[in-house]
Amino acid sequence: MPKPQTNKKSTSTIMEQGRRPTSYDVARIAGVSQSAVSRCFAPNASIGAAKRELILKVAAEIGYKPNALAQALISKRTNIVALIISARTNLYYPEVLAELSARLNERDMRVLLFSLSEESEVDGVLDQIWRHSVDGVISAARLSAAQVAQFAEHRVPLVLYNRVATAAPSVRCDSVSGERHLVEHLLAAGHRRFGLISGPADSYVGEERRTAALAALAQAGVSDVAESRGDFSYDSGHRAMHALHQAAGKLDAVIAVSDLMAIGAMDAARRDLGLGIPDDLSVVGFDGAGPARWGSYDLTSVRQPVRRMTDAAVSMLVERIEDATAPAEQRLFTGELLSGSSARIAVPAM
Amino acid sequence: MPKPQTNKKSTSTIMEQGRRPTSYDVARIAGVSQSAVSRCFAPNASIGAAKRELILKVAAEIGYKPNALAQALISKRTNIVALIISARTNLYYPEVLAELSARLNERDMRVLLFSLSEESEVDGVLDQIWRHSVDGVISAARLSAAQVAQFAEHRVPLVLYNRVATAAPSVRCDSVSGERHLVEHLLAAGHRRFGLISGPADSYVGEERRTAALAALAQAGVSDVAESRGDFSYDSGHRAMHALHQAAGKLDAVIAVSDLMAIGAMDAARRDLGLGIPDDLSVVGFDGAGPARWGSYDLTSVRQPVRRMTDAAVSMLVERIEDATAPAEQRLFTGELLSGSSARIAVPAM
Repeated sequence: MPKPQTNKKSTSTIMEQGRRPTSYDVARIAGVSQSAVSRCFAPNASIGAAKRELILKVAAEIGYKPNALAQALISKRTNIVALIISARTNLYYPEVLAELSARLNERDMRVLLFSLSEESEVDGVLDQIWRHSVDGVISAARLSAAQVAQFAEHRVPLVLYNRVATAAPSVRCDSVSGERHLVEHLLAAGHRRFGLISGPADSYVGEERRTAALAALAQAGVSDVAESRGDFSYDSGHRAMHALHQAAGKLDAVIAVSDLMAIGAMDAARRDLGLGIPDDLSVVGFDGAGPARWGSYDLTSVRQPVRRMTDAAVSMLVERIEDATAPAEQRLFTGELLSGSSARIAVPAM
Repeated sequence: MPKPQTNKKSTSTIMEQGRRPTSYDVARIAGVSQSAVSRCFAPNASIGAAKRELILKVAAEIGYKPNALAQALISKRTNIVALIISARTNLYYPEVLAELSARLNERDMRVLLFSLSEESEVDGVLDQIWRHSVDGVISAARLSAAQVAQFAEHRVPLVLYNRVATAAPSVRCDSVSGERHLVEHLLAAGHRRFGLISGPADSYVGEERRTAALAALAQAGVSDVAESRGDFSYDSGHRAMHALHQAAGKLDAVIAVSDLMAIGAMDAARRDLGLGIPDDLSVVGFDGAGPARWGSYDLTSVRQPVRRMTDAAVSMLVERIEDATAPAEQRLFTGELLSGSSARIAVPAM
């Protein structure tokens, strides 16, 4: 049976006009009401099987897809989650972003990405977020208490990633136990003169790791620790190694609060200062990022359980999207000590 | 003058109900029509100055923000651009993503991120893109001709990044001139026995670089080139170096079609095969990514002009969003040869 002539004309008209087909086009061609087309694509709406089949057939023929924006206005859900992430030199940022993105896609949610080059850009980002009606936000960038409070005001669920705030749920890797394990590992191997490459004073993660490392050393009676601050970049780790060497002379071990700074320190120690690693100097980092495993570094570090942490962040966010009264929970994951060849290890007793 | 009692009640009612204020709330409290509130926030709509001021005051008081979804349905513009990017082991992916994101934000556009772990996921991503009414798409992932054709059907502007298709505009770094410069650099320094670490056969960029390197070598009379394929990862570069060494014995130079594979090859050559770099073996890469500049590698490579390329990609996309009939343009950028210490250089004639 040939298709009715009118249908063919309508279809080609849309194509010639070069516009996207609408639900009204589907309705006209299928000979049904526009509200029937809407119901056909709405979840749980009632519509007869024959009418549904006809509408789906016409829609496929003319390339009509229901508009996610219109559906979002009806359902009050956009299935879009905003990710705020600081692109600042961080070796494991791509991995965290890829994993969060994969976990959200598995739940049929999309990622609206806000990649900050400076944390001062957060306010502008928040304004955008309120306007875009996202279902929720995961922030791996630092938020002030006032900024966290804005999420409650705007009723936008928030989960913090490797950040913490009393009013918001969060997922973190335990810096305290991680740095303690690194320090114990170094002490057991006989290291006594320590240098510390810390991060900028306004970095939450950096300060947490710095304090934990110094506390673990102090507990073992090591209180005279040379320190130089970096900004988490390779270059700053490189410079800090030179600064420590000038200020403190021969050290047994350098603790860097991130892998990238540890890698910069190793290159400075070996190439500029002529130190053998680990024979003359042990170096440890934190994160367990890809390049830390490269043959030239093989860095002793603490590996963050990124897969489990991103899983937890997404689960917590979905829970709060579905139930705004769900209590804020702080989840702390223990990292895994990776013993590489960048640090001497304890010789077992005979 | 005290505020009318009714207004206070309305405001607190919204707060108590724990819901986001709507344009109807603003209208009720300000004592104006809802359409006046809509006009107040619509671009170029007419509204009296006094009424406008009152509406903005009430909106600020109760925390009302116009809904971007509703505005998008009216304006047919969402100011959202989808980025399709393959997260597969690529050192310069984070930089490209951060730069594209920054360029789009400068133009007040947001990024809907589709991070692929495998290129086979593209079809699912495209379905999502048609549903989300994005203004346009930048793809750094490979698209088939059929997939590119779907963009035209759905009237969604597309710009390809480091990919090419006859029907779509694209921005690329010139692999042919880049590899030719690398080969000339190596030939001038006297290298004669070459090994090539190429990418997977289904990689557009990998094949382009492979073909260009082999053609430049053949032009200089070097046709016997040992080859081993990798998958762009560090580990695959490491393995390929071992394979080349076993198959071809002593080589003068290894050309890897990406920095990450070159870095893996350097670690294998130095640490496993005991070769000095560049004294026993020269290694070159492609991309000019951050770690290629680290002291342990200092890789001779071709640096892609990421800033200019991302600028061009965003400009071209915006042009096509504003004028769907703009002709497709293929823009080819020349990379910069970075001469590092991973490759011997020509000794100047006395």
